[in-house]
Amino acid sequence: MKIIKTIQELVEWRSQCEFPVDLVPTMGALHEGHLSLCEALQSKVLPNEKRYLVLSIYINPKQFNNSNDLDNYPVSMNDDIKLCEEQGVDVVFMPNNSDMYTADASVMISETQLSVNLCGAKRPGHFDGVCLVVSKLFNLVRPSRVAFGKKDFQQIAIIQKLIKDLSYPIELVAVETKRELDGLAMSSRNRRLLKEQRAKAPLIYATLQAAKNDNLSSTEELDIKTINHNLEQVFSPLEFKVDYLTIVHADTLQPCSSKNSQALLVLACFMGEIRLIDSIKLFDE
Amino acid sequence: MKIIKTIQELVEWRSQCEFPVDLVPTMGALHEGHLSLCEALQSKVLPNEKRYLVLSIYINPKQFNNSNDLDNYPVSMNDDIKLCEEQGVDVVFMPNNSDMYTADASVMISETQLSVNLCGAKRPGHFDGVCLVVSKLFNLVRPSRVAFGKKDFQQIAIIQKLIKDLSYPIELVAVETKRELDGLAMSSRNRRLLKEQRAKAPLIYATLQAAKNDNLSSTEELDIKTINHNLEQVFSPLEFKVDYLTIVHADTLQPCSSKNSQALLVLACFMGEIRLIDSIKLFDE
Repeated sequence: MKIIKTIQELVEWRSQCEFPVDLVPTMGALHEGHLSLCEALQSKVLPNEKRYLVLSIYINPKQFNNSNDLDNYPVSMNDDIKLCEEQGVDVVFMPNNSDMYTADASVMISETQLSVNLCGAKRPGHFDGVCLVVSKLFNLVRPSRVAFGKKDFQQIAIIQKLIKDLSYPIELVAVETKRELDGLAMSSRNRRLLKEQRAKAPLIYATLQAAKNDNLSSTEELDIKTINHNLEQVFSPLEFKVDYLTIVHADTLQPCSSKNSQALLVLACFMGEIRLIDSIKLFDE
Repeated sequence: MKIIKTIQELVEWRSQCEFPVDLVPTMGALHEGHLSLCEALQSKVLPNEKRYLVLSIYINPKQFNNSNDLDNYPVSMNDDIKLCEEQGVDVVFMPNNSDMYTADASVMISETQLSVNLCGAKRPGHFDGVCLVVSKLFNLVRPSRVAFGKKDFQQIAIIQKLIKDLSYPIELVAVETKRELDGLAMSSRNRRLLKEQRAKAPLIYATLQAAKNDNLSSTEELDIKTINHNLEQVFSPLEFKVDYLTIVHADTLQPCSSKNSQALLVLACFMGEIRLIDSIKLFDE
C-alpha cells in the first residue's frame, strides 16, 4: 500500500497509473462504515480486471460550519492506515491543509436546490465545502467509480447532482448505512459520545423504526410533532435536542407525505454538542 | 479526424484513449486566433510523442448575459470542420444544448475575486457561465494541456485560478492575441461589424499603441479620461461607446498605475451592438 501526502505526488502517481481508479473520500477516524464503502467498490471489480482503490483521508475545514466540531473531530491516523492495509486499499491520500487550500482561494462550487434545506439550512456553507473538496478529489484522482454512504442522505443526493451537472464521467456507488449491533448508525462522531449518551443513542434508530412500523400499519399520516416530543422526553436528561425531524422525498429532498413510496424519515439531533444524523425509508424497496 | 456530437460518445472515446489529450475550447466561427491556439499546443508535442488534440465547438448559452448577442453569434460549422481538418485536429467535439445542460441543473461555479470588475461587472453571470462550461469540458476531456487566448485577458486569469483552486492537473498555455494585418484583434464577433465599422475598428488598437508609446516616453501618468474622450470623438458617427477603459495589473486585474511593470491597458467598447475587447501591455516583457 502506498501512502501519498502531497498533491504533486498524487498527480505524478495518477499520470503514470494505467488502470481505472476507484475512490472512497473520507475524513479519517475510519470505522466499518468506511470499510463497507471499500468493499462495495472492490466487489464490482471483475475477475482479471485491474483497478486501483484510493482512499482519501482529509478533514476538510471548509465543510465545518462549527469550529469546535472541527477542533474536536476524531483523528486516528495510525489505526486508519492499518485498517486500509487490511482492507486492500492501494493508495491512501492524506494531504495537509496548506496543500489543499491556498490563502487566496476564490473559486466556489454551490448546489442551489438540494442543499437549501435540512443539513444545508442548519449548517451554512457545509455543502459548498463538500462540493469543493469532492470536486478537487475528483479532479486529482480522476476516479471512474466513487462510493458514498447513504447515512449522509443529503450529501449523496448533492454529489450525484454535482456529478451530473459538472459532467463527471463517474459512477456513484451508494452504500447502505452500517449500524452497530444495537442499531446506532456508525459515525466517527460516535467516539465523542459520553458513556451515558452512547448507552441511550440506539433509541434514535429504534424511534425511527417504530415510526416506520406505525406508518405501515396506520391509515393516518405520521405525527412528526409527537415523535419529536417523545424523543426529547426520552433523552431529556442528556441535553438532547432535535435539530430537524421531517419526511422528505428520497431523491428531491422536498417535504413529502409519509405515504409516499419514496418517503424518507430523516433526523438530525444533538446529544450535548455532538450532532448525529440518521434516516429510514418508510417503505422498503 | 473524428467528429463527436454527444457527451456519451465523448466519454467512450476518452475512456479508450491511451494517450494524453490537449484541448482548445471554442465557440466556433473559427479564425486564425483559434488556429494559433492549436498550433501552440501542437508545437509542444515532442518528436515520437503521441497526444490527441481535441477542439470543442459549443456556443455556451450560460455565458451570454445578452440574448441578442447569443442569437446573433456567428455560426460557420462547415468552414470550422474544414479548418480543424487542415489544422490536424484529432477530435472535434460539438455537443448540443440539451446534452450539455438539463433543465434542472443546480450546480454553479463562481470565481469571486478576479471576476468582479471589468467584463465581470459589465456582463453579470458571464464568468460563472465560462467557469461552468470549462469545468464540464475539463471533466469530460480530461486534458493535460489547454490553450486560451490572451485577448480574453480576464478569462485567462480566471481559468488559471479555476485550475489552481479546483486542483485540475492541467497546464494552461496562454497564447498571444492574433491580429489582422491592420491591427484589429481577431474575434468571431468582427464578422458582425458593418463595413464602415470594420474600416474604423483598427483605430482601437492604434489608440492603445499610441497610449503605450506616450506612457513610455512620459514621466506623467496616462490620462485615461482624455484617451476615452478622444476615442469617442474619433468614432462618434458609428454609435461607438467605451464600456470600460482602464489600467489593471496583468495578474491580479486590480487597478494599477500605468508605471507598474505589469500594467495592462484594457478596453471594452461597443460599435453599435457589437462588443469588442482589446488590451496592451504598457511595458514589454
